[in-house]
Amino acid sequence: MKTAVYPGSFDPVTNGHLDIIRRASKIFDKVVVSVFVNKTKSNAFSIEERVAMLEKVTAEFDNVEITSSDKLLVHFMTENNINIIIKGLRMISDFEAEFQMALANREQCPEIETLFMMTSSELSHVSSSLVRELASYGADISPLVPPQCIDAIYNKFKR
Amino acid sequence: MKTAVYPGSFDPVTNGHLDIIRRASKIFDKVVVSVFVNKTKSNAFSIEERVAMLEKVTAEFDNVEITSSDKLLVHFMTENNINIIIKGLRMISDFEAEFQMALANREQCPEIETLFMMTSSELSHVSSSLVRELASYGADISPLVPPQCIDAIYNKFKR
Amino acid sequence: MKTAVYPGSFDPVTNGHLDIIRRASKIFDKVVVSVFVNKTKSNAFSIEERVAMLEKVTAEFDNVEITSSDKLLVHFMTENNINIIIKGLRMISDFEAEFQMALANREQCPEIETLFMMTSSELSHVSSSLVRELASYGADISPLVPPQCIDAIYNKFKR
Amino acid sequence: MKTAVYPGSFDPVTNGHLDIIRRASKIFDKVVVSVFVNKTKSNAFSIEERVAMLEKVTAEFDNVEITSSDKLLVHFMTENNINIIIKGLRMISDFEAEFQMALANREQCPEIETLFMMTSSELSHVSSSLVRELASYGADISPLVPPQCIDAIYNKFKR
Amino acid sequence: MKTAVYPGSFDPVTNGHLDIIRRASKIFDKVVVSVFVNKTKSNAFSIEERVAMLEKVTAEFDNVEITSSDKLLVHFMTENNINIIIKGLRMISDFEAEFQMALANREQCPEIETLFMMTSSELSHVSSSLVRELASYGADISPLVPPQCIDAIYNKFKR
Amino acid sequence: MKTAVYPGSFDPVTNGHLDIIRRASKIFDKVVVSVFVNKTKSNAFSIEERVAMLEKVTAEFDNVEITSSDKLLVHFMTENNINIIIKGLRMISDFEAEFQMALANREQCPEIETLFMMTSSELSHVSSSLVRELASYGADISPLVPPQCIDAIYNKFKR
Repeated sequence: MKTAVYPGSFDPVTNGHLDIIRRASKIFDKVVVSVFVNKTKSNAFSIEERVAMLEKVTAEFDNVEITSSDKLLVHFMTENNINIIIKGLRMISDFEAEFQMALANREQCPEIETLFMMTSSELSHVSSSLVRELASYGADISPLVPPQCIDAIYNKFKR
Repeated sequence: MKTAVYPGSFDPVTNGHLDIIRRASKIFDKVVVSVFVNKTKSNAFSIEERVAMLEKVTAEFDNVEITSSDKLLVHFMTENNINIIIKGLRMISDFEAEFQMALANREQCPEIETLFMMTSSELSHVSSSLVRELASYGADISPLVPPQCIDAIYNKFKR
Repeated sequence: MKTAVYPGSFDPVTNGHLDIIRRASKIFDKVVVSVFVNKTKSNAFSIEERVAMLEKVTAEFDNVEITSSDKLLVHFMTENNINIIIKGLRMISDFEAEFQMALANREQCPEIETLFMMTSSELSHVSSSLVRELASYGADISPLVPPQCIDAIYNKFKR
Repeated sequence: MKTAVYPGSFDPVTNGHLDIIRRASKIFDKVVVSVFVNKTKSNAFSIEERVAMLEKVTAEFDNVEITSSDKLLVHFMTENNINIIIKGLRMISDFEAEFQMALANREQCPEIETLFMMTSSELSHVSSSLVRELASYGADISPLVPPQCIDAIYNKFKR
Repeated sequence: MKTAVYPGSFDPVTNGHLDIIRRASKIFDKVVVSVFVNKTKSNAFSIEERVAMLEKVTAEFDNVEITSSDKLLVHFMTENNINIIIKGLRMISDFEAEFQMALANREQCPEIETLFMMTSSELSHVSSSLVRELASYGADISPLVPPQCIDAIYNKFKR
Repeated sequence: MKTAVYPGSFDPVTNGHLDIIRRASKIFDKVVVSVFVNKTKSNAFSIEERVAMLEKVTAEFDNVEITSSDKLLVHFMTENNINIIIKGLRMISDFEAEFQMALANREQCPEIETLFMMTSSELSHVSSSLVRELASYGADISPLVPPQCIDAIYNKFKR
């Protein structure tokens, strides 16, 4: 059985993330979506809120599991016997940072392989930070995030 | 009448900005240069200081108007009946972020079009952050900013 | 009156080209779409065929004019009193070559300005060479080219 | 059973290709390495020579199969019931062209997914064209190609 | 005598830095490695700790000298009669920022020249920030930093 | 004594090449500018013409020597006891190909080091192919090439 992890901060989950999850769920037997704690960034949503949103929007996928971790990605993978990382690519700048991280992960654990998947081109501008910015202005976020998350996101940024 | 907005933080205005303003003023009937408030960045100059510097250095252009806004760019444009955004491109990394932002703006408001113009190649390294760094060391900023702004910039960084 | 030229080889015209023509026709008073002869490339379609296809697909735009030229672009512009070039940007690699060409054109003729517009993101992969390759295999080109051109393109590549 | 195709011109196979084949063979149940005929390029090695070299260097992998095709990749995949494409990424410029091709393939056949894998960083400069150039000068190609292919490659370029 | 400066924050020194120092020491008569204080970043190691680590790992090179400075790089160079800057390049994104900085330095002081050297490809993912992140998780940093520095780095991040 | 080779096809020499030669001549004791024969490209100027133009435009530099070679660059260097390659960088796309070539050269001969220098930003669009294209249309090439070469270049492209 091939299991892949799809790691991220998902702050909040976007339609771009969901697109990758959908695509990965067709290729791998099991996809573990894991919210990783980035100690150096302050976040808009708590880990629990992010996991809850992910669970809601992936309920339809039988082979997708949501979790979170405060470990290093490669340590999480070793403990869970996973050796495939899924990453979505949107634009060049993504690729740069992701390539560097993938080489670092491979060095920590040579049997770990990173597979890059392309987001749909009509989602190539979607990012969590764009969602946060638009929501803070009360602008329309409906093309960017799953419908089940819209209210929670607006509520977070309402003052 | 074709009106275009040239948005930015202009913290402070540079010769690169002025180069784009000059080029845009020849193409469009009216160019609205608008200082946008970026909530997530702390700035060196106040909105009022930035507007004042822009007004001083664009005094010679009859069809250039300076303003500021704390709104989202697309909301500002809708309220002011503007649907053309001007952006200056210096280097690849500019293009990445600008492309993403332009797609996001088009999604919020499909009639909005972003036009990219090239800065003069001898200004390709000029940025507000470079000006701020050099000024903080008392280094020569005269090739980077309009002459009318030099004193104000040094004064800001003097301790 | 602001007139812009949209130069290209259009071998054949694609939905990406048409997208840029449509966007430019809303911004400028007149858009001159000009088929340029590239001496160093062999082409699939003759100049006349390319002009005919462009005329057919732009018939709906009142302010779009189709022409062709075997001159250097800047010479064509000077003779026709045009000083704005429109270029569509799809991906980074486009930008590189276009930027270099735009600097060269500006050097030949300083009053010439190049404005870059973004193709719709769902057309970011569309190019004339992709159309030619797919057509040569009899594959589906309908998402890539205007419907009026499909038969002419398949006929060209039929053996 | 998950089957993936690894398409290429393999003119000739390099250690970079072999690195990707090895990595893919661990992730997928079956990897079909397919030599595609590029009508627009002249090649150094015949299809038969390229298939023979690939078969020799992949003999150790039980789940790797070598084939060739003069069809369009997506047609080949549909006929063979494969919907995963493997591509190796070395550098940015790779990514650009591959991204564009992957979007085109997805458009032709939406259920087709392209997965990008990273070549080992110490092979990031390896390409078939580099091998051909070095071999034509009689330079050392041993770090670039599998040992079983060295003689055949030198023989091809000897005059 | 040709002297070059290799500036950086070295927070902490990595095998990538050491690779560049080794290469530069073969080309130039003297290489001055200088720790620059970046006022806008908080650092993990003090200037003294960074200088001490650099001195330890470069002890074998006769023509390498370690120093630090809180000046602007070009001012430091003028005072020390140095006009060559060495920079290591790992990836594209490096190049962008470095290119911009090099143009700025050339403008401040036209006789200053920046020479870019390539890090070994197997070190292309190594950066001080990666070292800091891995060390904060207690992960293996031995492929990334000189052996003499490992203990000091782990101690810094132990809580 | 530090000797560096500056290799290229120089078909024809441009102000961009001359800019790099001038900069390199200040840093190295001797700069060998070498015209390399590219077997796979047809050229506009013969090797002899290219060497003659280079000699004319570098007459003022005491430590610059012009030569040509039909060898592989690394073989040329080994025979001439040179281990430093100078390369000019203009734009990102340059960097990609040059980086790959530099890694290949380092692999062939580990003691060989490639140093990248930046062309002046106002020359960032200059290339031999641009010169050839403009000259073939009788356009102004004076900002692109040394004055001593203008007549020879126009003559070559006159019909």
